[in-house]
Amino acid sequence: MTDKRRLRVALLGAGSVGSQVAALLREHADELAERSGAELELAGIAVRNPDAPRNAELPRELMTTDAETLIVGSDIVIEVMGGLEPARSYVLQAINSGADIVTANKAMLATHGAEIFDAADQVGASVSYEAAVAAAIPIIRPLRDSLAGDRVNRIMGIVNGTTNYILDRMDREGADFGEVLADAQRLGYAEADPTADVEAYDAAQKAAILASLAFHTTVPLEAVHREGITGITKGMMDAARHAGYVIKLLAVCERLADRADGEAVSVRVYPALVPREHPLASVHGVNNAVFVEAAAAGNLMFYGAGAGGLQTASAVLGDVVSAARRHIAGGVGVGESARAHLPVVAIGEIVTRYQVTLEVDDQAGVLATVAGILSDGRVSIATVEQTVTEEGRARLVIGTHQAVEQDLNETVGRLATSGVVERVVSVLRVEGD
Amino acid sequence: MTDKRRLRVALLGAGSVGSQVAALLREHADELAERSGAELELAGIAVRNPDAPRNAELPRELMTTDAETLIVGSDIVIEVMGGLEPARSYVLQAINSGADIVTANKAMLATHGAEIFDAADQVGASVSYEAAVAAAIPIIRPLRDSLAGDRVNRIMGIVNGTTNYILDRMDREGADFGEVLADAQRLGYAEADPTADVEAYDAAQKAAILASLAFHTTVPLEAVHREGITGITKGMMDAARHAGYVIKLLAVCERLADRADGEAVSVRVYPALVPREHPLASVHGVNNAVFVEAAAAGNLMFYGAGAGGLQTASAVLGDVVSAARRHIAGGVGVGESARAHLPVVAIGEIVTRYQVTLEVDDQAGVLATVAGILSDGRVSIATVEQTVTEEGRARLVIGTHQAVEQDLNETVGRLATSGVVERVVSVLRVEGD
Repeated sequence: MTDKRRLRVALLGAGSVGSQVAALLREHADELAERSGAELELAGIAVRNPDAPRNAELPRELMTTDAETLIVGSDIVIEVMGGLEPARSYVLQAINSGADIVTANKAMLATHGAEIFDAADQVGASVSYEAAVAAAIPIIRPLRDSLAGDRVNRIMGIVNGTTNYILDRMDREGADFGEVLADAQRLGYAEADPTADVEAYDAAQKAAILASLAFHTTVPLEAVHREGITGITKGMMDAARHAGYVIKLLAVCERLADRADGEAVSVRVYPALVPREHPLASVHGVNNAVFVEAAAAGNLMFYGAGAGGLQTASAVLGDVVSAARRHIAGGVGVGESARAHLPVVAIGEIVTRYQVTLEVDDQAGVLATVAGILSDGRVSIATVEQTVTEEGRARLVIGTHQAVEQDLNETVGRLATSGVVERVVSVLRVEGD
Repeated sequence: MTDKRRLRVALLGAGSVGSQVAALLREHADELAERSGAELELAGIAVRNPDAPRNAELPRELMTTDAETLIVGSDIVIEVMGGLEPARSYVLQAINSGADIVTANKAMLATHGAEIFDAADQVGASVSYEAAVAAAIPIIRPLRDSLAGDRVNRIMGIVNGTTNYILDRMDREGADFGEVLADAQRLGYAEADPTADVEAYDAAQKAAILASLAFHTTVPLEAVHREGITGITKGMMDAARHAGYVIKLLAVCERLADRADGEAVSVRVYPALVPREHPLASVHGVNNAVFVEAAAAGNLMFYGAGAGGLQTASAVLGDVVSAARRHIAGGVGVGESARAHLPVVAIGEIVTRYQVTLEVDDQAGVLATVAGILSDGRVSIATVEQTVTEEGRARLVIGTHQAVEQDLNETVGRLATSGVVERVVSVLRVEGD
């Protein structure tokens, strides 16, 4: 096939992802042409510093510091520079100059997604972002295309490899958070400043993107409830294991269809107890997985490496092939701007199950008092286990039925000041059972 | 949005899948129009007997026995009647009359796929078949689109729910094959005649489809090596568990890149030992999962319900939305006819690990004799466990390193006639470690 159309591809960014994208574009040129129906010509690579050291050999003559000129006349613009600006401005410029966009930039999409999708829809451009969530694991395309005739009700995702690595090792080795974090930093699985991962800022961005797509609405990043894993102790891990659970940092996106005031969504990221037999419980190491509950399709899970330059580049290339096909076919992109604006409920309004661990005086009547306070607070007990601890005190591990978070919090507050509870050891949500 | 284009959709078949497709088309009409950019008008439903009882309420006036007339003028033809003919003829007619095809028919694709894809490519039609493998689990689209810029090296799939249900219960309950099969039949998980499932004809069709797509080649159904699960005993299950494995019916599709005579593929379906910690080992009940190893993306797994009318209908609807978008945009379908014709190697040529279980005389020197025969046959021992059985005999469980199947078979033949081996208890392949 020699009379293929030629498409100009502009690459913005040449970090760990960008350099791999450039390498794969050249290495697989023939297959990419075969599958996309177009010769993909890498027209240039916009970087801040052309002389910086790179992971892969990149032709020096393709490098430019002038992204804006590179974008002009490009058919496909791949944005893998990350960050909010100038990424957002370049993407908007590219859309308005007629290019299709492929991006791996979760921060930009979680923050400026609505603006970008609107701009794309106005000119009929496509914006693809498989690489923005869970690297090479296909999750954006399945949600957007495969489930286009279905209705997603809930997503539970392990979408941050660093925190899964830490929690997995804490679980399997009985190690401490700090100890494993230091190890992860040494091995390159965690940054020197691990805040974005361990405080779940990264997972919150991905949750906003997944929920927006799955529920065809716009979830602002600031509406995502976010709790990190720094408070998870060895003791909590051990207790979880004993009770048949494992603690995972979950991004939970939930459609709330039955509310009196109309449909709403809940989007939250926190460490939660997951039953050992749930498929998410066997996601180990730096792997990611996204569990999707759909009305007709039932339960699906997508699993794989959630990070890595090469893995992310694979997802980018898949999007590039689709963008090339679309660019040739003409017509308009898939379109994500026709979105609802479903309210995102506050964390106090969510309904889930909880495990409350209390240290109490080992006296007659204490359990009755605790049970009474729970019952008064509209928190129904599913399971309870009492063990006498070394100090002569007793430990109560209470599993609740479904309860409203606010009721649960108020009830735990009353327990704490009840006189019979020495200490609230932990309160954890239970997901996936 | 009121000025949407109207697309005529013809449905061929109203069985468990077709009736759900018809129901979802009506139920989700607004969302489907929103996501596809077209009003999808169900123009008619071709059935053999309009008066047969149906799972869902289908409008009697849409029913017709004249599929050929229905197809004329249709934009999208959904074929969910199953079987080879008249399905193949209708699909070819539809392609040549300008329709895009959505099908769930694995038998037809495994047998006549090349002919159908060629016909579609000649007129620029699209043929979508997400529902043909693993129901609602997105696997066709990820292989075709998400990994379009990558290179798939290997697929291991649990693609038959009935056999996974049987093997899973045998593993978890220590039950017998016959006992669990009878139960599965009672529960509707297995047919009255279970041959297609337990003899792996169904899995072989799916393996041919997956391998053809993943390696961009044409794998004829008759080139797929096929072994069913009827020979799997409680004893083999127990031994597998003891050794840290579980037995799963696997569809293995492998790219053989390093052969002296050029690239080839291996496509085989058989019960194999899978390490307990492998993600495929935790696929329980009637669920399916497909594990994909790609050069850049690394290891991915796709998991979910692999059967069911509603689940399959979800996959069909996703394809219908994509077909509608494409039909409106114009241009040509993805195109699968430009395929290589990679040779499919015979089962004797594959290379994998094996577990060989032998009953031997409990005498000095027997292990040395056995080890010598293995070594002479180019089969290298990785692990060996000897246990004395009740009858005064000994049992040898030998795990091999990678070996060529033909070498292994010849060696096992020599062991059987060596005089020191009383009985070859089992020979199982090991996959996924």
